[in-house]
Amino acid sequence: YQREIADRLTAKQLFRVVKTTAATVDLDSETFVRADQVCEWRSPEQLKELLDLELRDGGESESKILQRCRDAIRYSVKTTHPHFFNQLYAGMEPYSLVASFIVEALKPSLYTYEVAPVFTLMEDAVLRKMIEMIGWEEGGDGIFNAGGSMSNMYAVNLARYHHFPDIKEAGLSAVPRLVMFTSQECHYSISKAAALMGIGTKNVYMVPSDNRGKMIPSALELLIKTAKSEGAVPFMVNATAGTTVLGAFDPIQEIADICEKYNLWLHVDACWGGAALMSNKHQHLLKGIHRANSVAWNPHKMLMACLQCSAFLVRDKTNLLQRCHSSSASYLFQQDKFYDVSYDTGDKSVQCSRKPDAFKFWLMWKALGTGELEERVDRALATARYLAEEIKRREGFRLVMEPEYANVCFWYSPPSLRNLPDGPELWKKLHTVAPVVKERMMKKGSMMVGYQPHRDKANFFRMIVISPQASRLDMDFVLDEIHNLGKDL
Amino acid sequence: YQREIADRLTAKQLFRVVKTTAATVDLDSETFVRADQVCEWRSPEQLKELLDLELRDGGESESKILQRCRDAIRYSVKTTHPHFFNQLYAGMEPYSLVASFIVEALKPSLYTYEVAPVFTLMEDAVLRKMIEMIGWEEGGDGIFNAGGSMSNMYAVNLARYHHFPDIKEAGLSAVPRLVMFTSQECHYSISKAAALMGIGTKNVYMVPSDNRGKMIPSALELLIKTAKSEGAVPFMVNATAGTTVLGAFDPIQEIADICEKYNLWLHVDACWGGAALMSNKHQHLLKGIHRANSVAWNPHKMLMACLQCSAFLVRDKTNLLQRCHSSSASYLFQQDKFYDVSYDTGDKSVQCSRKPDAFKFWLMWKALGTGELEERVDRALATARYLAEEIKRREGFRLVMEPEYANVCFWYSPPSLRNLPDGPELWKKLHTVAPVVKERMMKKGSMMVGYQPHRDKANFFRMIVISPQASRLDMDFVLDEIHNLGKDL
Repeated sequence: YQREIADRLTAKQLFRVVKTTAATVDLDSETFVRADQVCEWRSPEQLKELLDLELRDGGESESKILQRCRDAIRYSVKTTHPHFFNQLYAGMEPYSLVASFIVEALKPSLYTYEVAPVFTLMEDAVLRKMIEMIGWEEGGDGIFNAGGSMSNMYAVNLARYHHFPDIKEAGLSAVPRLVMFTSQECHYSISKAAALMGIGTKNVYMVPSDNRGKMIPSALELLIKTAKSEGAVPFMVNATAGTTVLGAFDPIQEIADICEKYNLWLHVDACWGGAALMSNKHQHLLKGIHRANSVAWNPHKMLMACLQCSAFLVRDKTNLLQRCHSSSASYLFQQDKFYDVSYDTGDKSVQCSRKPDAFKFWLMWKALGTGELEERVDRALATARYLAEEIKRREGFRLVMEPEYANVCFWYSPPSLRNLPDGPELWKKLHTVAPVVKERMMKKGSMMVGYQPHRDKANFFRMIVISPQASRLDMDFVLDEIHNLGKDL
Repeated sequence: YQREIADRLTAKQLFRVVKTTAATVDLDSETFVRADQVCEWRSPEQLKELLDLELRDGGESESKILQRCRDAIRYSVKTTHPHFFNQLYAGMEPYSLVASFIVEALKPSLYTYEVAPVFTLMEDAVLRKMIEMIGWEEGGDGIFNAGGSMSNMYAVNLARYHHFPDIKEAGLSAVPRLVMFTSQECHYSISKAAALMGIGTKNVYMVPSDNRGKMIPSALELLIKTAKSEGAVPFMVNATAGTTVLGAFDPIQEIADICEKYNLWLHVDACWGGAALMSNKHQHLLKGIHRANSVAWNPHKMLMACLQCSAFLVRDKTNLLQRCHSSSASYLFQQDKFYDVSYDTGDKSVQCSRKPDAFKFWLMWKALGTGELEERVDRALATARYLAEEIKRREGFRLVMEPEYANVCFWYSPPSLRNLPDGPELWKKLHTVAPVVKERMMKKGSMMVGYQPHRDKANFFRMIVISPQASRLDMDFVLDEIHNLGKDL
């Protein structure tokens, strides 16, 4: 046996690795906090050579592995850097990171209370608090998922199951054509869900939005009537609270009225905008959300919980989530256990192993309190407002629209274009500016800001402001830097 | 501005948190390696009181938060403890843990090369190596997912899209009834996928297995004919390589012959058994896997990569994965970027943000080499074989069947039952033994071993052997301990 015991991972080995890790993470902190650069750009071809990706028969020494860790960190984008504004998440929440490390070291998985007692209860506590903030006074149910796309998928499945429970067993082939509604500004996961779930992307009716990106309720009602007149069966509406590009909020109250009138499931995709529920000043953006049947809300976005931290919440109190998704595997969900098996939440999920993401939110919420979370949201929106005013003040910058949330969309005109008359030629030229400025900022590594075309609009920049990640100084930096990078175009 | 700058997360704050974390993780190492106990059992009611789960308006001090971390660790199950055998994963792979920590600290997300250059390339490198081990000489494609259930779901969607590409847009309502086939021993995610995807669980035809748990090919062919005679349209077969309970391998060669004959997509769920591909000695268990259209394989199981690490692999070379799942969001997958956008892999996924799980496998593979991974698989199966022989040797223990993989299933009879004649009364009594032994091991915290009823069989124990997590000493410990805990029953 001696050899086997020696081979088994020992405490000594584990301590060594923890030390190695600490060294690596420390190095990492130095890199990403002190570094001037958000990224050190290398083309795919260059990076392949630098990283030596090939996996071989023989192993490598510890010092070599440590160098590989350093390289992975060095050439990765520092999404936690104060000048990273490229996605709907950014920054580093220290307490959440501590929770992440604990989760990684403990390797829990959330199927049963017996295997994950602490995290099962924490998930429940966080869900209950989020439900309270949504305003479902009777309570509700929920689950943390591997991302907002999955939460939206859950919503579609629950809505369908609520109206047609037989589909779970019998499938869709015997059912009339089902139709769901969402605005043309919604996140692409709604279409992906429809494709995956056999509903079909053509049966996602895209409701027109107004010029601020908000769903037009009368257009929704018209489309519902159209679907009915086609012999199709409407079953749900997705309202977006905080659209991906413009940060627009659909008018939930009016949409809820229509859903009630036509008996449709109302889902609110608040993955991005849900954070406003934390703020007394801004929660009016989601007015009426308590009337939703389900809500998706990602604390890993505006609230800076570590990736991923995505909640799906449902108002139902009849165990719909479990009934819709359960398969009652007897090797996992035995009914002759010695504790209350209602704590075994795994059968609510379409996943089997599932990470305890709620802990990453729970620990930071404990440390900061709701008050500090509210302040952060208020500060982010004040900073976004500051940025919008600066854009209006500065020559060569132009807002796409007044922001009501943390997305600030704008064009930059280099001096050479400033005297062109407003017309197709100007917009054609402006369209080419953002990609070049983006290429230059990446190659310099000074910051990362997204851009995109949108409907009939030429490429514009989209700033995402997340506090305490971003200050007014950073806003000034971004505008100065865009000008520096693009003024010769 | 001064206040804002002071409020922004500073390097100093981050260093402090890294130190706090290091302390916590260190504490954790002490707890889970030196501890005698796999778990310190508390009922849900007790644990709720101990943890103070409520989230409040005010925050808490750092020392209080550190205590909360200690409590979370203390009452969590130590799935990395050498006597944890409860799931299809166990143990701690130090290099993989280092990779996990780096991922958590860097907060990357895998939609585009621009945001995750290093991890995009590493994912590609790992997928290509796994594809090579499957034996797809022409190459293939793939993606890492949030668990094997999602990989199996991807397989169903690809199989459907391959046969009926119009369903993505038009949905299932206009299509004849689609039918898929899997063995009665398969993982429950196959049914969950069928439910979610609108196929319906009734249209998953369960093929009988032989007494070793392997799908019976002639029964498969019969069911295909039945489905056709009903006017339904068969489109895929799922073969399981390493079933969840018995560790059985479906005969892939014979199933592949049938799939070719009837033009059906062949998916192999090798989430658990895929590790045998690493071993020259044991890869015969998956003979014929190179004929599969798709494979699910979870390195987080037998190979001990940190949770989660799950690959979905597909033989297709026509970009089927992307065509099936894409929605071409213009804000993320801009086509006017300055680099080769074929490196933007995000549109292959039904997720939006996605963690770079491949890195957790890449780093440990680099450190250990294929050779060491092979040795570990061989040793795990040798240890499982040792356990089976011990069970046969010891009074009161009885194998459910000879293991061919790392699942060892057996009954334990306390002395009081040993003289009962084989018959319904004995089995009824034996059925009650495992739950009580399980309760006692949990409350003592000495180890965790799963049990379940299975088809017509009374509750039996299922040991999962993963090396270098488990040695022969540990096997002896488990049998001794079961006897100690149950001998008075």
